Amino acid sequence: MALNKLHGLTYLCSSLMKNTSGLHTSVAALQKWKVGKINHIAIATPDIEKTAALYRDVLGAKVSDKHPQPDHGVYTVFVELGDTKIELLNPLGDKSPIQNFLNKNKNGGMHHICLEVDNIKEAIEDLKAKNMRFLSDEPVIGAHGNLVIFLHPKDCNGTMVELEEV
Amino acid sequence: MALNKLHGLTYLCSSLMKNTSGLHTSVAALQKWKVGKINHIAIATPDIEKTAALYRDVLGAKVSDKHPQPDHGVYTVFVELGDTKIELLNPLGDKSPIQNFLNKNKNGGMHHICLEVDNIKEAIEDLKAKNMRFLSDEPVIGAHGNLVIFLHPKDCNGTMVELEEV
Repeated sequence: MALNKLHGLTYLCSSLMKNTSGLHTSVAALQKWKVGKINHIAIATPDIEKTAALYRDVLGAKVSDKHPQPDHGVYTVFVELGDTKIELLNPLGDKSPIQNFLNKNKNGGMHHICLEVDNIKEAIEDLKAKNMRFLSDEPVIGAHGNLVIFLHPKDCNGTMVELEEV
Repeated sequence: MALNKLHGLTYLCSSLMKNTSGLHTSVAALQKWKVGKINHIAIATPDIEKTAALYRDVLGAKVSDKHPQPDHGVYTVFVELGDTKIELLNPLGDKSPIQNFLNKNKNGGMHHICLEVDNIKEAIEDLKAKNMRFLSDEPVIGAHGNLVIFLHPKDCNGTMVELEEV
């Protein structure tokens, strides 16, 4: 009888482990998006020509021309560094989304990092289910022509994280 | 006579242009170092387990264990994102170099970016000649076992830039 009980318990444990293992596989299979590489690091600057010259003339990196992005309220300059970019940002217009940051950081500084995702719709749905908040309800077309959305910095330990579908 | 003077002037201009062009070529050939990719972005955090869980469990990235780096006064966790890493930093000991940053940024935030160079000694010599300042006189062995040195953030438009010889 004691042996029967032990056998029953072993069977129960074995079944539970199988079910738990199966559950993990199902959850992993259900996640319909993946995070990829760092697309860029954005640095806000009050003087984009001066900062572009630092990366081009002093550090010797490949630096793009300055591009106005009126839909995003910024000028951009891209610094190519291997597989990742630095995106220099300077305010364009009265309602630039980086003006407040530059008011607090007069010399400029690191503004956000952008992580690539393979499916932004699935990422948003999954992250909302994990109680993550976003700075907008829906993704928008970003400076590179791809869908982007910002996570709330309060949910990312003080760092502004942008997701970009690539 | 007027024609002779014009000819002489043309010859002088031509010689000057040739010399200037030669000088540019020589300067480029003399630069004995190159900047490479972004090695990592460092994020300082008051709660490294919580921030590691964000990147591992919420965003689904590959995240290392926590490593103490007593020589550098920090704990580190590495988040692998393509060809680049996020380096999470948390103070270790009383004289941690990131404590002052965390006192000013209670929730944590982006602390520095690290750019790879192929020859740190030549980079330092060249950058000093370009009036760039460093946070130490000499490079030291960093958390990855390579020589590193920090540029002064006041010379990098508000961003702390680390150079690492790779």
